[in-house]
Amino acid sequence: MISPDLASHTAAQLETEGSLYKQVALRIAELIEHGTLRPGERVPSVRKCSEQQNVSIATVMQAYRLLEDRGIIEARPQSGYYVRLQRWSPAPEPAITKTSHRPTEVRVSELVMQVVKSGRDSKLVKLGATLPSPELFPIKELNRTMASVGRRSPVAAHSYDAPPGNQALRVQIARRAIEAGCTLSPDDLITTVGATEALNLCLRAVAKPGDVIGIECPTFFGILQIIESLGMRVCEIPTYPRDGICLDELEERLRRCRIKACVFTLNFSNPLGSCMPDWKKQKLVEMLSRREIPLIEDDLYGNLTFGAARPKAAKAFDQDGWVMLCDSFTKTLSPGYRVGWVAPGRFKEKVEFLKFVNTAATASLPQMAIAEFLQNGGFDHHLRRIRRFYAGQMQRMSEALTRYFPEGTKVTRPTGGMCLWVELPAQVNSLAVYRQALTENISIAPGPLFSAKQKFQNFIRLNFGNPWSDTIENALSRLGEIIKAGAADRNGVAQFRGS
Amino acid sequence: MISPDLASHTAAQLETEGSLYKQVALRIAELIEHGTLRPGERVPSVRKCSEQQNVSIATVMQAYRLLEDRGIIEARPQSGYYVRLQRWSPAPEPAITKTSHRPTEVRVSELVMQVVKSGRDSKLVKLGATLPSPELFPIKELNRTMASVGRRSPVAAHSYDAPPGNQALRVQIARRAIEAGCTLSPDDLITTVGATEALNLCLRAVAKPGDVIGIECPTFFGILQIIESLGMRVCEIPTYPRDGICLDELEERLRRCRIKACVFTLNFSNPLGSCMPDWKKQKLVEMLSRREIPLIEDDLYGNLTFGAARPKAAKAFDQDGWVMLCDSFTKTLSPGYRVGWVAPGRFKEKVEFLKFVNTAATASLPQMAIAEFLQNGGFDHHLRRIRRFYAGQMQRMSEALTRYFPEGTKVTRPTGGMCLWVELPAQVNSLAVYRQALTENISIAPGPLFSAKQKFQNFIRLNFGNPWSDTIENALSRLGEIIKAGAADRNGVAQFRGS
Repeated sequence: MISPDLASHTAAQLETEGSLYKQVALRIAELIEHGTLRPGERVPSVRKCSEQQNVSIATVMQAYRLLEDRGIIEARPQSGYYVRLQRWSPAPEPAITKTSHRPTEVRVSELVMQVVKSGRDSKLVKLGATLPSPELFPIKELNRTMASVGRRSPVAAHSYDAPPGNQALRVQIARRAIEAGCTLSPDDLITTVGATEALNLCLRAVAKPGDVIGIECPTFFGILQIIESLGMRVCEIPTYPRDGICLDELEERLRRCRIKACVFTLNFSNPLGSCMPDWKKQKLVEMLSRREIPLIEDDLYGNLTFGAARPKAAKAFDQDGWVMLCDSFTKTLSPGYRVGWVAPGRFKEKVEFLKFVNTAATASLPQMAIAEFLQNGGFDHHLRRIRRFYAGQMQRMSEALTRYFPEGTKVTRPTGGMCLWVELPAQVNSLAVYRQALTENISIAPGPLFSAKQKFQNFIRLNFGNPWSDTIENALSRLGEIIKAGAADRNGVAQFRGS
Repeated sequence: MISPDLASHTAAQLETEGSLYKQVALRIAELIEHGTLRPGERVPSVRKCSEQQNVSIATVMQAYRLLEDRGIIEARPQSGYYVRLQRWSPAPEPAITKTSHRPTEVRVSELVMQVVKSGRDSKLVKLGATLPSPELFPIKELNRTMASVGRRSPVAAHSYDAPPGNQALRVQIARRAIEAGCTLSPDDLITTVGATEALNLCLRAVAKPGDVIGIECPTFFGILQIIESLGMRVCEIPTYPRDGICLDELEERLRRCRIKACVFTLNFSNPLGSCMPDWKKQKLVEMLSRREIPLIEDDLYGNLTFGAARPKAAKAFDQDGWVMLCDSFTKTLSPGYRVGWVAPGRFKEKVEFLKFVNTAATASLPQMAIAEFLQNGGFDHHLRRIRRFYAGQMQRMSEALTRYFPEGTKVTRPTGGMCLWVELPAQVNSLAVYRQALTENISIAPGPLFSAKQKFQNFIRLNFGNPWSDTIENALSRLGEIIKAGAADRNGVAQFRGS
């Protein structure tokens, strides 16, 4: 049976959204929740539901697809939709983290490099890195597009596309920014070597070595590494697994430390998957702008929502240019192209200078190919496909975790992105689990990577970007056993030390 | 008539080299120098010369091509080779620069960005930037190669090529490094976004904000900008227009200031075109290594020698890993691909970490395409072609300068690279010349870009990377008039102030 918790969560979510197909989905979800439709039973056919609810066939199709995305019903070929046969009750969620009020040196890079390098072995079942599976990229179309723009514009393809970068691409990015609620012109944008370069440039534009940067806790280790490499310090802000950073705690810290800038991933943060509601984003932007503190917004996952429409970027609420929006095509089109961008607001001139000095230009042909693909290649269609995919993957992995992981495990419930943040029983040492798993060809990302001082000893991050398979299922099952052994051990570490 | 100065210079150069065809070329050059062959006269036919000198036809062809490259004879279609009709005596060379012993803050970026941006207008005759003409790149072959590797390895083309970067490319770079006298393994190398990123990473690996970096004076403004952007200071070392930095002056400065690292372009430096002899490179490496001071070597132009073989890199003399060799394919294959590399010696781990943090990875497909081209595309043939081209261009531009520029102009005589460093009469203000030229759609690089404190007020750098044409000839003629007007003016500036 659908757990009351899930169903009410879903219902609550659906209620706040409110277009017609969502209302239809809500009614079906309620029938399931109240037991009128039982697990394994067929839900009304699309035609029948259309008559019953007095809505179009298309609306019902959309509603059923949403319910499928949420893991409530499943399609069986040639037969129709069924309530999922599941005895699944999701694990409880981790709580908000406590953090110190004091600025902190970042000491995480050595550990990160060890983990990153050991995770490259091709024989590993990769549950650690947030890398989408290559099958999720429109590789053929992009290859065709690149060959074609290379033929059509041979000189441009081999010339510098000096900062601010490819004009056609900036036009397309500005056009698409509307979906994130942003009004941008091509002149507001600078293209970069992925979001990584964009984040580097923004930090360098607004802060110096020794300065304090406000970050989410936990946060993506790549952000920690950039800050560490620039000799800056951090102030970690407690962050809710669902709604993002706690604004009251931020307010408190803004009063106590001299925070020079903030780097936040507000939409489907990594590793929490939290998504800050738009009203809260607006409040955040007002809080920071009033104090003239730049907000460096990493919106890398904004497009990977499980819902129908993507959440807004904080940049949408930026009145005075204090928000520096960073994004890339790494998670949606191609990691290998290395094309990202930044809308640096009032710091545009400085960021453009730093881009010129840091890498002179971004590779021309990948920019040209992406510009062309955005204009003619069906990017929206592609996004719909991968959003559905990730939603399904998230559901499957969450279910597997309740099957295989020990009692007391807590798991986030992200509404977008491609990772789960898993809190293991307190006595489990995630670094020991990581090392043991590696000997069995399973890679995971241990919790200590995600904070300045290597907290989160009993957390791991799992990536659900690879298509579900028996290999993944078996790896999770084996991982569960390793964790259970760790949990049973008196100090959770000893038995792995020798390995 | 060939000026005695040129002929003896050429003869001296040829003598030190010494293969058979060079000896033949030397004999012909002497006949011209002594007046046996007069300007406009036909030189002996290839066959006749082969009989007279008792060497093969191929050797004579090679000798004549060398004399043509040096601007001593010229080919006339269907007719043979002729002594060039010229009354050309090269301008004298600029002297070595005096510099301060004190570390200096760098303040050049604002001016550089103005000049760089104003130089992008497509209607300009571009004599300012050291950008090779697109015709000099094997564009068709590279496009074909890229399309083919993309088809053959679609997944790799779209995946991260995480640091140290593409393995096949590193194999090819290591193989080719032998020509620069270096024994490198693929594991010694890291690929980067052009040499620009390589220089950034090296500096960040070995120095901190406030540290003092030894540089040539004058030096490429891009190097100054990187140092400025990182908050480091410089100690400028006097540099000979032919042989590179003065080692005695370097020694003196090493004793006086705490130089943390040096960034030198030893082969065909920009803007001087100086090339440090190999024995001096060895001494330099010993001097710095003994003091454990890293030498960041920018070898961007090493392949663009006008001679038959490229000069060695200082890295060739590196015993203990203190030399960090940076290079790229920007000047030889494609600026738009943005593929460079670094052999960071003992700092490899740090540079690899910084690469990961700065841009995560270099775009995959351009790396794959260049690896393939280096293996099968005729890179050596291509290099020979562009070396001949640049040698001829240098000669033509030098001649034009003696025709059009005022008495008192001094010009370098580079043996490689693609720029001339021109000292105008002392009262000429090169920034005023730059601004006036810009209004007439001619771009040049004014001297103040090339030192930390904007010295070289009466110098300009000219790029001869674009195929000779009437447009270029006319632009140089017009530039000469602007300069003459400036030189005639009492203070060399006034008449341009209004424009």
